[in-house]
Amino acid sequence: MLNRVPNDSDIQEAHERIAAYVHRTPVMISTSINEMAGCHIYFKGENFQKVGAFKMRGGINASLQIPEEKRQNGLATHSSGNHAQAVAKSAQLLGIPAYIVMPENAPQIKRKATEGYGAHVCCCAATIESRQATLEEVVQKTGAHFIHPFDNYDVICGAATASKEMIEHGPLLDFMLAPVGGGGLISGTCLSNHYFASHTKVIGAEPEIVDDAYRSLNTGILQTNNSIDTVADGLRTNLSEKTFGIIQKHIFGIVTVSEAEIISAMRLIWERMKIIVEPSCAVPLAAVLKEKKLFANAKVGIILTGGNVDVESLPF
Amino acid sequence: MLNRVPNDSDIQEAHERIAAYVHRTPVMISTSINEMAGCHIYFKGENFQKVGAFKMRGGINASLQIPEEKRQNGLATHSSGNHAQAVAKSAQLLGIPAYIVMPENAPQIKRKATEGYGAHVCCCAATIESRQATLEEVVQKTGAHFIHPFDNYDVICGAATASKEMIEHGPLLDFMLAPVGGGGLISGTCLSNHYFASHTKVIGAEPEIVDDAYRSLNTGILQTNNSIDTVADGLRTNLSEKTFGIIQKHIFGIVTVSEAEIISAMRLIWERMKIIVEPSCAVPLAAVLKEKKLFANAKVGIILTGGNVDVESLPF
Repeated sequence: MLNRVPNDSDIQEAHERIAAYVHRTPVMISTSINEMAGCHIYFKGENFQKVGAFKMRGGINASLQIPEEKRQNGLATHSSGNHAQAVAKSAQLLGIPAYIVMPENAPQIKRKATEGYGAHVCCCAATIESRQATLEEVVQKTGAHFIHPFDNYDVICGAATASKEMIEHGPLLDFMLAPVGGGGLISGTCLSNHYFASHTKVIGAEPEIVDDAYRSLNTGILQTNNSIDTVADGLRTNLSEKTFGIIQKHIFGIVTVSEAEIISAMRLIWERMKIIVEPSCAVPLAAVLKEKKLFANAKVGIILTGGNVDVESLPF
Repeated sequence: MLNRVPNDSDIQEAHERIAAYVHRTPVMISTSINEMAGCHIYFKGENFQKVGAFKMRGGINASLQIPEEKRQNGLATHSSGNHAQAVAKSAQLLGIPAYIVMPENAPQIKRKATEGYGAHVCCCAATIESRQATLEEVVQKTGAHFIHPFDNYDVICGAATASKEMIEHGPLLDFMLAPVGGGGLISGTCLSNHYFASHTKVIGAEPEIVDDAYRSLNTGILQTNNSIDTVADGLRTNLSEKTFGIIQKHIFGIVTVSEAEIISAMRLIWERMKIIVEPSCAVPLAAVLKEKKLFANAKVGIILTGGNVDVESLPF
């Protein structure tokens, strides 16, 4: 288990460790989106990843890093999103129990999906305090190992393998973009580009409403969000100490976008590429369409983070 | 231009003729759908085809078969669906005009998409008579060449290349399914399997509400539909003489499914495969899920016909 920022060998080893448990997802292009954007975009389709999101990479990597005898009591986490499913699926693959703490107001569909992977779902009140208290209780009672959604170097290291695959796929990119929530993916993306494609500038894409990363970078002090009312439900969390540290050192910049820009970019991906992506995925494309001058004629990589949406409540 | 049922060389030549103008689309599998269905399904993703549908294959093949000097006056058709876009796109690629007759009540989104490929859209009243009269008028005035959506052997021959690619991709299938509307795709599928994979049984999938093909086969006489009120908007047309002739000779059978079964199968493809398919695409999967005994443990090919849906009015 890593207790320091991952180096190039750590990411390489993580990639080999998880290879049998994850899909090597496709890289896709869309001529019509390229024409609109005025640049060449390569989309890494983590919506086709196991559990429908890149989170599987960090979840399984962190799980495999727990020594086998310690792992037998199971895995635990608090999440109502893709990380919950990733931990549940990882536990299922490893034949151990999973305990997922979810707020009582979490959508039924997410609860069902998590239970579908055989996890025990533990309900808590919809506050951060209740979430943490319930998690501690579960861990104490079961001896399960807690896997934080992003403030965990093994999770970051797993997330870094998505951008590593995009680098291996080629071509040499001028920019690589990922959305910024808790910062697990963007910090992993910073690291793999730093080690394996130092020419490529990494840019984070963030909804204006939850621009804690943008403000943290500007002020040099970890900021939090007052409102989390963004359609990009995967990006409502704040950066952590670990992810902020990596981002601060390696990121080229952050572009923030409005809710309307996110929804319009999401719709563009659905209609032109015929693939299902969640709103969080569309934030980097919205950023590219907003800052056309910056990206003009460039080769741009975008990580499509996941495809878990409730088709009964779409934003368009 | 073919004036007889295509033979194996015709299909082979059509495939070579259109290769530069169409995508060789991917074949996809879904472990979870296989588990539900109790068989091994291979999905041919024509939703990723140019203009978002297999219709591009027939449209461009028929266009290329018109002698070049005759072609200069342009192409014409009547359609408010994927064939309209296929003819419009074919004309654009060949640098000639396209005249598309659309009923005045066609969705704005389809009209816009067709105009987006540079076609002239000619409005008519929403009756078959007005449609045909307007088309004849347009053809007389412009000298454009009419490409029928399915009652045309070059269109059928182009459609047959989708199943030919699936055969080439492998494995050897026990069944291949396609939805049945006017019958262009299913008759092309019958032919390519007859010539290139004679082991494989071809099954048509049809909504119960528009079961003209099912009744035509049972009675031996071409039937029509009284109601066309199915969610599978691509399948509302009746078979033609040409398509019925081929189907009657080669098809193994037709399975009909309810509207609820179609919508449920469509949702399954969206949620499990993270790809956007139109309702017509889901009809064959609905048929496989309905007739589990027939398909038990079999290798089953399904052609996903297209991905053009209005995301603002989904059936779930």
